[in-house]
Amino acid sequence: MPCQAYYLGPEGELQRDLNKEEIKTAFESKQGLLWVDILETTEEDGAFLEQIFGFHHLAVEDCVSQALHPPKIDDFDDYLFIVFHGINHVVESEIVETAELAVILGSHFVVSNHNFPLHSVEAIKQMVEKDGRPMRRGADFLAHALVDALVDNVLPTVDQMSDIADEIEEEVIRNPQQATLEAILKLKRSTLRIHRVMAPQRELLNRLSRGEFTLIREEARMFYRDVYDHLVRIEDLNQTVRDRADNALNTYLSSVANRQNETMKVLSMVATIFLPLTLLAGIYGMNFENMPELKWSWGYFAVLGLMGTAILTVIWRFWANRWITWGRRKVTWIRPFAVHPEKLVWHVSQLARPSRRKSQQ
Amino acid sequence: MPCQAYYLGPEGELQRDLNKEEIKTAFESKQGLLWVDILETTEEDGAFLEQIFGFHHLAVEDCVSQALHPPKIDDFDDYLFIVFHGINHVVESEIVETAELAVILGSHFVVSNHNFPLHSVEAIKQMVEKDGRPMRRGADFLAHALVDALVDNVLPTVDQMSDIADEIEEEVIRNPQQATLEAILKLKRSTLRIHRVMAPQRELLNRLSRGEFTLIREEARMFYRDVYDHLVRIEDLNQTVRDRADNALNTYLSSVANRQNETMKVLSMVATIFLPLTLLAGIYGMNFENMPELKWSWGYFAVLGLMGTAILTVIWRFWANRWITWGRRKVTWIRPFAVHPEKLVWHVSQLARPSRRKSQQ
Amino acid sequence: MPCQAYYLGPEGELQRDLNKEEIKTAFESKQGLLWVDILETTEEDGAFLEQIFGFHHLAVEDCVSQALHPPKIDDFDDYLFIVFHGINHVVESEIVETAELAVILGSHFVVSNHNFPLHSVEAIKQMVEKDGRPMRRGADFLAHALVDALVDNVLPTVDQMSDIADEIEEEVIRNPQQATLEAILKLKRSTLRIHRVMAPQRELLNRLSRGEFTLIREEARMFYRDVYDHLVRIEDLNQTVRDRADNALNTYLSSVANRQNETMKVLSMVATIFLPLTLLAGIYGMNFENMPELKWSWGYFAVLGLMGTAILTVIWRFWANRWITWGRRKVTWIRPFAVHPEKLVWHVSQLARPSRRKSQQ
Amino acid sequence: MPCQAYYLGPEGELQRDLNKEEIKTAFESKQGLLWVDILETTEEDGAFLEQIFGFHHLAVEDCVSQALHPPKIDDFDDYLFIVFHGINHVVESEIVETAELAVILGSHFVVSNHNFPLHSVEAIKQMVEKDGRPMRRGADFLAHALVDALVDNVLPTVDQMSDIADEIEEEVIRNPQQATLEAILKLKRSTLRIHRVMAPQRELLNRLSRGEFTLIREEARMFYRDVYDHLVRIEDLNQTVRDRADNALNTYLSSVANRQNETMKVLSMVATIFLPLTLLAGIYGMNFENMPELKWSWGYFAVLGLMGTAILTVIWRFWANRWITWGRRKVTWIRPFAVHPEKLVWHVSQLARPSRRKSQQ
Amino acid sequence: MPCQAYYLGPEGELQRDLNKEEIKTAFESKQGLLWVDILETTEEDGAFLEQIFGFHHLAVEDCVSQALHPPKIDDFDDYLFIVFHGINHVVESEIVETAELAVILGSHFVVSNHNFPLHSVEAIKQMVEKDGRPMRRGADFLAHALVDALVDNVLPTVDQMSDIADEIEEEVIRNPQQATLEAILKLKRSTLRIHRVMAPQRELLNRLSRGEFTLIREEARMFYRDVYDHLVRIEDLNQTVRDRADNALNTYLSSVANRQNETMKVLSMVATIFLPLTLLAGIYGMNFENMPELKWSWGYFAVLGLMGTAILTVIWRFWANRWITWGRRKVTWIRPFAVHPEKLVWHVSQLARPSRRKSQQ
Repeated sequence: MPCQAYYLGPEGELQRDLNKEEIKTAFESKQGLLWVDILETTEEDGAFLEQIFGFHHLAVEDCVSQALHPPKIDDFDDYLFIVFHGINHVVESEIVETAELAVILGSHFVVSNHNFPLHSVEAIKQMVEKDGRPMRRGADFLAHALVDALVDNVLPTVDQMSDIADEIEEEVIRNPQQATLEAILKLKRSTLRIHRVMAPQRELLNRLSRGEFTLIREEARMFYRDVYDHLVRIEDLNQTVRDRADNALNTYLSSVANRQNETMKVLSMVATIFLPLTLLAGIYGMNFENMPELKWSWGYFAVLGLMGTAILTVIWRFWANRWITWGRRKVTWIRPFAVHPEKLVWHVSQLARPSRRKSQQ
Repeated sequence: MPCQAYYLGPEGELQRDLNKEEIKTAFESKQGLLWVDILETTEEDGAFLEQIFGFHHLAVEDCVSQALHPPKIDDFDDYLFIVFHGINHVVESEIVETAELAVILGSHFVVSNHNFPLHSVEAIKQMVEKDGRPMRRGADFLAHALVDALVDNVLPTVDQMSDIADEIEEEVIRNPQQATLEAILKLKRSTLRIHRVMAPQRELLNRLSRGEFTLIREEARMFYRDVYDHLVRIEDLNQTVRDRADNALNTYLSSVANRQNETMKVLSMVATIFLPLTLLAGIYGMNFENMPELKWSWGYFAVLGLMGTAILTVIWRFWANRWITWGRRKVTWIRPFAVHPEKLVWHVSQLARPSRRKSQQ
Repeated sequence: MPCQAYYLGPEGELQRDLNKEEIKTAFESKQGLLWVDILETTEEDGAFLEQIFGFHHLAVEDCVSQALHPPKIDDFDDYLFIVFHGINHVVESEIVETAELAVILGSHFVVSNHNFPLHSVEAIKQMVEKDGRPMRRGADFLAHALVDALVDNVLPTVDQMSDIADEIEEEVIRNPQQATLEAILKLKRSTLRIHRVMAPQRELLNRLSRGEFTLIREEARMFYRDVYDHLVRIEDLNQTVRDRADNALNTYLSSVANRQNETMKVLSMVATIFLPLTLLAGIYGMNFENMPELKWSWGYFAVLGLMGTAILTVIWRFWANRWITWGRRKVTWIRPFAVHPEKLVWHVSQLARPSRRKSQQ
Repeated sequence: MPCQAYYLGPEGELQRDLNKEEIKTAFESKQGLLWVDILETTEEDGAFLEQIFGFHHLAVEDCVSQALHPPKIDDFDDYLFIVFHGINHVVESEIVETAELAVILGSHFVVSNHNFPLHSVEAIKQMVEKDGRPMRRGADFLAHALVDALVDNVLPTVDQMSDIADEIEEEVIRNPQQATLEAILKLKRSTLRIHRVMAPQRELLNRLSRGEFTLIREEARMFYRDVYDHLVRIEDLNQTVRDRADNALNTYLSSVANRQNETMKVLSMVATIFLPLTLLAGIYGMNFENMPELKWSWGYFAVLGLMGTAILTVIWRFWANRWITWGRRKVTWIRPFAVHPEKLVWHVSQLARPSRRKSQQ
Repeated sequence: MPCQAYYLGPEGELQRDLNKEEIKTAFESKQGLLWVDILETTEEDGAFLEQIFGFHHLAVEDCVSQALHPPKIDDFDDYLFIVFHGINHVVESEIVETAELAVILGSHFVVSNHNFPLHSVEAIKQMVEKDGRPMRRGADFLAHALVDALVDNVLPTVDQMSDIADEIEEEVIRNPQQATLEAILKLKRSTLRIHRVMAPQRELLNRLSRGEFTLIREEARMFYRDVYDHLVRIEDLNQTVRDRADNALNTYLSSVANRQNETMKVLSMVATIFLPLTLLAGIYGMNFENMPELKWSWGYFAVLGLMGTAILTVIWRFWANRWITWGRRKVTWIRPFAVHPEKLVWHVSQLARPSRRKSQQ
């Protein structure tokens, strides 16, 4: 049983690493604050919880089960069974995965369960080891500390996703590839994953903070409200990452279409230049007996000159019609969009400054 | 009448395979728990139910009718008429189909109707046959057992859909075909089908678990709540499968566009190389009398050399401009996207590890 | 005035084809049940209704007006003014159109108005003519019979749309044409049309069945609830048709892209094979004096052999790279997607069978 | 001050064109009904309204301001400040624009403000001029008359949009151009514009009709309800126009893709026919000394015959494979979709007739 | 501490630039109105606020923190903690960014915090400096002035976005480039950003204006309602910009497809004209001994004439089939959509005039 228990007695003395007997005694004293943290809850742990704490069979089953449970609060009158999700930093997947923390909150005890080691729980444990501070204000504040650390832990992940979005945005302009598309789609799925887990948690924190449960005292509610605000911020950032992924997808698809367009233009240009000239050469390769030009001594050079002139004319025409930019093709092909869009950009950046006339407020 | 009836008397004795008379007696005793399960309810069964149990004509009609009914609860004061859906494992369709189970729940009886054999009902029957356990805690617990088994039965189907999504994701990168598209669209329709049936059931279970119906005693409600949680989990997994199908669709469409792009590039390359050279050959195939080059003894070899050089130069140019990768074309064409996207992937996988500086929590 | 009136006296005797005087007498007796059905209500009919029955001017105006009115219930205390929509079987349009039935329901009378002959009203009339049954249980049951028949009448239309979806799905694989696209879009508009009319009617029936109106007695409510369930079923089927239309649209667009791809491949193949060989022929058509190969007696045959070998090699290469299937092109072009997608299909069909290990329930 | 005032005294006598003094007297009599209509309210008018009527500064500010205000009702206890939108028939834009009418409704007065001449207000004025009828039933009925006329005025615009949709649908099949796309997008934006203005007005009319404001007497509410119904109808028609615009967009995009397809097919066909034959001609243009065929006296004619046969064969093959219809290309290119889609169309039109077997109701 | 404080004593005398001691005295007098505005709140400022004003630790933390907080209202009974967002005119980004203003509103004090200089706060300060007017009506009116100025400040930004939309719409027709796409996507993200911040603020203002908080007196509520109306207008304009960006995106994508189409048509035209003629030239370049045409003295000229005729015929055919407009290609290519869409446009502009027959109102 990889389980750790702390007990803060009514006189403020902290006991560490309680064994089962001590846990039982501490629980039955109905005083102070008992915190039991269980990693990878086994059947045996489940039986222990059911026996000593008298938890409902279904709550214990959820703790023992390896399956993922969506966030929820079950109110068993004497205690709350809360399931929350944070980022699972252990599973190495290209999509962000979430890990679950089950907290059973009573008036003088907190039991926490998780199947993966969680940074947030470790951090709280260290603070408790040091001076017992997170436990000194009561069970609801300890539960708040756990949930708060879990939620704050999501923020660096969203920040990293934002960094990836930066990279993708650059990549999608510079060198769009199928790998870029996959990165975009993975980023989008990560944002969806986070959204799907965070949105219901917001609702749960709303319920915890508005006084629906008497186990959460009034002075603690504002702190749950604060976690709620953090969640709103995370969702907002996450949403922004999703918008950027959507835009990157649009840009990617448009780049692919543009590239195809460029390929087509090369083809058209080659055909437009060489097919007519090949016909010309073919004409003078005919074997008619009576072809006066063939006898002209300067005929051959005239034809060569005509061909050269034709090629130059066509290229010049293409160059002249700016909308094809055949001439600058080699430049525009590689980086066809970097050509002075300053005017538009200037306008967009103007947004950030209030116009002098209109915004005299 | 392929109907089976069980009666658990007030003293806990279990009667099996009751006939109509016995069912009537058991019902009228208003004691113990009577369970009647009817497969493919006929008009005659309907008449029997209406007569003996006094069920409302509309409820009986819904049982008898072969048409699919959406999930619902009708409250007839003395009994609840509940329609639930599970997976129909009998119909062999490429799209997941649902089967319906109608449960009529009274204070001391349960009548279940279904038009297809259901694994979940069979499983409960076997448990009843063995020791009568599912019936020992009352009618509401028996109804819960039926609904719970029905819902849990959906999970392996969603798991299989997830496996298919794995396969499709591989297929869509390796070898996207129209058949892949069809598989994606079928998978998506299956997720929609499940979503459409499960979403209203969640609402129904919410109503069953929050004390709206007095026939569901308080101790049973938490168990209905548990089924609700399972439904939320199923919907979450199902949603993930749908997201993956959406992404696979995007990847498929992009792959098709890329493929076309590659075809175009081959065409452009061939035309760019051979059209100018054909012109060159055409020029020296002209029959002008005065073409000095024709008389040079090394003229032919110079032209051959020029052609070879031109071909090599063009190929080299294509190779040099990495963004076309004409040179590696044969490689990149087959698997054009596998070329070292490590950098991006590395970043995405970094998500799973908390950054050292930011997440000191 | 194409109007028919029935009166079922308090002793159960049925009077048919009442004239205006009799209608007035029957209405004023405030006993029994009077049913007046008016087809294409004229101004004159409106004045009659306003005078005799004392209906509100706005209600009468809605009856007389030829314009379509969205479904609604207006509660005028003494009577309910209900507008419901069914399928308009008279208008021959490629998009499903709806027809409106206005029912004014009082405690002892029902007045129904419609601008198009309705099958459902005809059916109820025939039943009344036979034995007066639909009228024997009171005004609310008669109104229920009218609404129920109207709603049930929608089902065969949805069934036919489902049949069209079958046909479109086949067509879209076998032979996608612009006409197929138009059929898909028309089908989709029909489903939208039905959805837009049925969704508010569900809300109306919900209100009728939950006891909001005292004119609907408690024993009748469950019957309105039953109509509500039918509407849910119709919407569910309609939704499925829409999903299928959406999928067909995706398949159509993908087929068009695939076809273009195939056209491009043919072009590329032809160019790849013939352009280099044309160059070869061009080279030996040059007129250089010193071209040693031209004098070799077997030179011509060597070139012919080289060309033949080149063509065969290219074709073989295309054949070998299964992902292009140039070799089987003629087969795959016509039906390029039918090539053994069994594996995927097998998996999808596996969904219908519970896995042995996972679903032991 | 382009302002017109009417006063209907308590004895039913109508006064026209009141000046400021008379308005003040009429307002202070607190009897009869006073209607003041102001076009292009100036600062001065605002001061007058604030002074005489004692309106809240913010309400007056909204009247004076030239900016558009979204529909709303502000309840100032003694009077209601209502902002409603109708179609702005003065601004000539390709997108439908809305104009605003502000109505201040008290128990014995109505003040209406608008910055553009409104047909609806003119119509009510003419009726008042004639016999004072719209004013005879009280302030709430007068306000109803104004709002009703404003809303009814939207219908012809939606009808015209429906006509444009007809034209676009024809155009998009016959001759899709970029101008067609722009017309579609403009039509869609007009429907969005109408939707965005009408949807909140529906909510406002719902509030006006359900007795939330005591200034609207019970007998007037049903009339506001009637305006609500008109709005629902307008939204329904508007929605239908939007659906049609969406479908037209789909058809347009598909037509563009089809056209490109056709262009590609022409190219492929030309290349497939002429490239091989050019090679053949090239072969016999080679200058090998030993080419036996060249000496055969019928060799040239054999080659010509072979070429003719090849061309005919390829064309025949294209013709035979109905799915390319190269043969009928010139026909199908121009109108490639008109080719007998009767079968599908027949089915869709069948929708309008109930099937004989299924709908016996 | 870049902090400015004003105190309006109970006798209406205004004190400027209070130091900490004076702030404390003013706060403790519980009279008059104290306004403290802090720019870039430091830890030290936070400690000061907590100490003197007794604000809750969490509220102070939010003020000190540099992170963005979503809009919210926290009710601490004695004071309200309000977070609002305006446009951040300092950050120069191509996407509109928002800046946050935290207002703590008590019965006789207002504390405002912001990390960026805000034009709106400066404007209010200047008005206070001048005659103290914004402070004379109490704390709730001062808070209103701050929020009102903040919200009104958003309008010129939306107006500028509307101007950019004008430019983009022109650009997307005249000369669509990848830069145009990026400008569209940036504009869209700006509208999303504004929508995400404004939508929750609307809800907050609704709460402030409907009397949920006693600190907002009844006479102030209507003024908050007015800010709510401004927000609705901003959202409406913002929505319109988004619709236009969506349409521009559609037009852009369609233009790209059209351009590709034009490129293809050039290619097809060139191939259709020159490939057959090249074959013809090739035929007469064959070296058969028996080719009678070669000996005809006018053979060569006949072939030249044939070629010229063929070219002219093909071009004429292309010209004749208006739907290709090969002939006018150079015109239509550059501006292919400007060709007389008057008819459609005429109809759209007709919308603005009521039809004579239908809208007699």
